[in-house]
Amino acid sequence: MKKKTIGILGGMGPLATMDLYKKIILSTEADCDNAHIRVYIDGNSAIPDRTAAILSGGEDPVPEMLSALRNLEKCGADCVVMPCNTAHHFLPRLQAETELPILDMTAITAAVCAKRYPGRRACLLGTKGTIAAQIYDDALKAAGVDFLVPNEAEQTELMRLIYDVVKASRPLEPETESWHALLSELFGRGADYFILACTELPILADHLGHPGPFVDPTLELAKAAIRFCGYRVKEK
Amino acid sequence: MKKKTIGILGGMGPLATMDLYKKIILSTEADCDNAHIRVYIDGNSAIPDRTAAILSGGEDPVPEMLSALRNLEKCGADCVVMPCNTAHHFLPRLQAETELPILDMTAITAAVCAKRYPGRRACLLGTKGTIAAQIYDDALKAAGVDFLVPNEAEQTELMRLIYDVVKASRPLEPETESWHALLSELFGRGADYFILACTELPILADHLGHPGPFVDPTLELAKAAIRFCGYRVKEK
Repeated sequence: MKKKTIGILGGMGPLATMDLYKKIILSTEADCDNAHIRVYIDGNSAIPDRTAAILSGGEDPVPEMLSALRNLEKCGADCVVMPCNTAHHFLPRLQAETELPILDMTAITAAVCAKRYPGRRACLLGTKGTIAAQIYDDALKAAGVDFLVPNEAEQTELMRLIYDVVKASRPLEPETESWHALLSELFGRGADYFILACTELPILADHLGHPGPFVDPTLELAKAAIRFCGYRVKEK
Repeated sequence: MKKKTIGILGGMGPLATMDLYKKIILSTEADCDNAHIRVYIDGNSAIPDRTAAILSGGEDPVPEMLSALRNLEKCGADCVVMPCNTAHHFLPRLQAETELPILDMTAITAAVCAKRYPGRRACLLGTKGTIAAQIYDDALKAAGVDFLVPNEAEQTELMRLIYDVVKASRPLEPETESWHALLSELFGRGADYFILACTELPILADHLGHPGPFVDPTLELAKAAIRFCGYRVKEK
């Protein structure tokens, strides 16, 4: 049987793309180079900002996303994954253009939440674009997951961490206190756990030592892609 | 002017490929997603082991390397980089098959050594394949860099760290003592600094807190590729 391969429609942002690739590698049951999955990546840094397109009439990102999708098709990918939650707003338009299955990070994540934390309340942490376009809402409701979102001040602080720190390649450690303070506030407002629904956030969370609990959509997408390809997920 | 792009001929191994991509991202002067370089990656896990091909009649890796190279051409890459030192043994055969420039990690590294450590003696740490095929020898000699290589016992220990730990995705931290002991021994035999001439070694070195000094060919290749594309290298 031909082994299946993964295409990463990336660049949104580059570090998040790297993070997904790393999570695919580290979550694959493999003991040598050749036991890993073949992965194609187009880290297309020319894709316009997704939140700006959704909220403020910014340039449509779909043409540049399609340019990357076509490259993944040419390489021979068997499925497509997008390490950008906000980009999932455009998934239906992309899926209409390709026969390759695009794995849906929101549905995958919602199923994990429902199974891991039944009856608990999630806090959805994402960009303004992800929250405003309600990218996770249908998936969470369909899975029966109760959730809250940050208020305006909390959301502004979250956008600062995503855009001015991680996407700007600034040092993460100086943000330890502000990250912990933000999560404490959300615990106080009724959150039981956090969905890191922006691919920059697991990068922050991995470095700043807060115990969560977190659901990491990047990691869950990695595991789903590994299973799609017929490989075994390595249990920690 | 059209912005230039990088093609990574990867999968040798996957973590080393991820490491090069990360170093390209973190070494690019950029303050948002769109300021980064477009990077195409084929993490082709089907490429046969390079050291086995050089030393013990293992399968020729060039056909699978060419498969990845063709994908990078189809995507529109402007240059090719290979995050595998041992793979550079096959660079002339690959370069004969493509018009894309393949940046030579060995020459780039040798130039850095000569400039940063004039008159000092390097220790070349690589796979048995890299040492036996003398992949770095011409470049180091041409740059006037004096160097020594591990003895047989040291080389066996190095191969264990590369293959049984990093490539096998095993925990790195338990190897702290053995890594430090190996470097101490080489200091004792006259090394002034170390060339981490296997792409698994910077991953080990980044985690195990030895001060070196190290020259990291993966990082130097990342910087050279950034400059090739006309972007600015971020100085730490």
